[in-house]
Amino acid sequence: MGDIRDGEIALPFDPATATPDAGLVFIGCIRSPWTVREDCPKNMNAAREHGLPAEVLIDAPYRQGLDGLDGVSHVVLLSWLGQARRDLIVQKPRHAARPRGTFSLRSPVRPNPIGLHIARLVSVDAASGVLALDAIDVLDGTPLVDVKPYYASTDAIPEARTGREA
Amino acid sequence: MGDIRDGEIALPFDPATATPDAGLVFIGCIRSPWTVREDCPKNMNAAREHGLPAEVLIDAPYRQGLDGLDGVSHVVLLSWLGQARRDLIVQKPRHAARPRGTFSLRSPVRPNPIGLHIARLVSVDAASGVLALDAIDVLDGTPLVDVKPYYASTDAIPEARTGREA
Repeated sequence: MGDIRDGEIALPFDPATATPDAGLVFIGCIRSPWTVREDCPKNMNAAREHGLPAEVLIDAPYRQGLDGLDGVSHVVLLSWLGQARRDLIVQKPRHAARPRGTFSLRSPVRPNPIGLHIARLVSVDAASGVLALDAIDVLDGTPLVDVKPYYASTDAIPEARTGREA
Repeated sequence: MGDIRDGEIALPFDPATATPDAGLVFIGCIRSPWTVREDCPKNMNAAREHGLPAEVLIDAPYRQGLDGLDGVSHVVLLSWLGQARRDLIVQKPRHAARPRGTFSLRSPVRPNPIGLHIARLVSVDAASGVLALDAIDVLDGTPLVDVKPYYASTDAIPEARTGREA
């Protein structure tokens, strides 16, 4: 299972080896500039600061699903962060002052390591399955599980607060 | 597999019965006012118009993961919309003028039927595992796969457009 830091709490079982309640299929992967974890930006804002674009490559059987995405300015990508351990329910990220519950963090360490990324959609080529993005905050080769259009009407809540603002 | 409408396209395989690439564990469920599909709002704005609150119930082993969520105004919920078929890659929702690629829609019908819902977090009771929400747009009993804090800094893009605006 790997080490645990002071104040961290592991589940009494590992979701990675538990009997799954549902199964995912990978629909493609993310091509990113980041090949080692130390370089990989921790969120989309940090990724954008690097000014490096990224791509999604959708596998052939799923490419017809891209029809109608042109004209969409931003997409929600759901990725599978399968390199992360899944058994920590309280964790202390390096930047955090104290251990926190996993569901109060965006850490990839969680029972179901699904990453949520909102990226600007620069272009769509349905024939080759390539979506060009302004930036991404995951390692090269990260599997993709879903693409959704981002709807400002339901998804943009600029007044949202985390209680951790300075 | 079920019927297919004019212009819809099915995958040559069904992701529901394909060998999974990754497995999910359910961490709880959503308690909603909606028990039949015909009543269930199609998105969070429609759900809010009803003025009916909802709850998330987190299963006991995962409740420590809620520590630190108090103070967070909005959460991202990822649900498992397991009643939806998974094999349509081009589909025609009843409200749509023409068939569209699945990834250009927020329909629950998709290869990995993960629902994305951004709700206002009214209260958190970590001991009982209950999150009170302002509203929800899924059926009662829908399984939950993740809770994340919503960060306006990365998740709110009010200027996003879908190209389908009037």
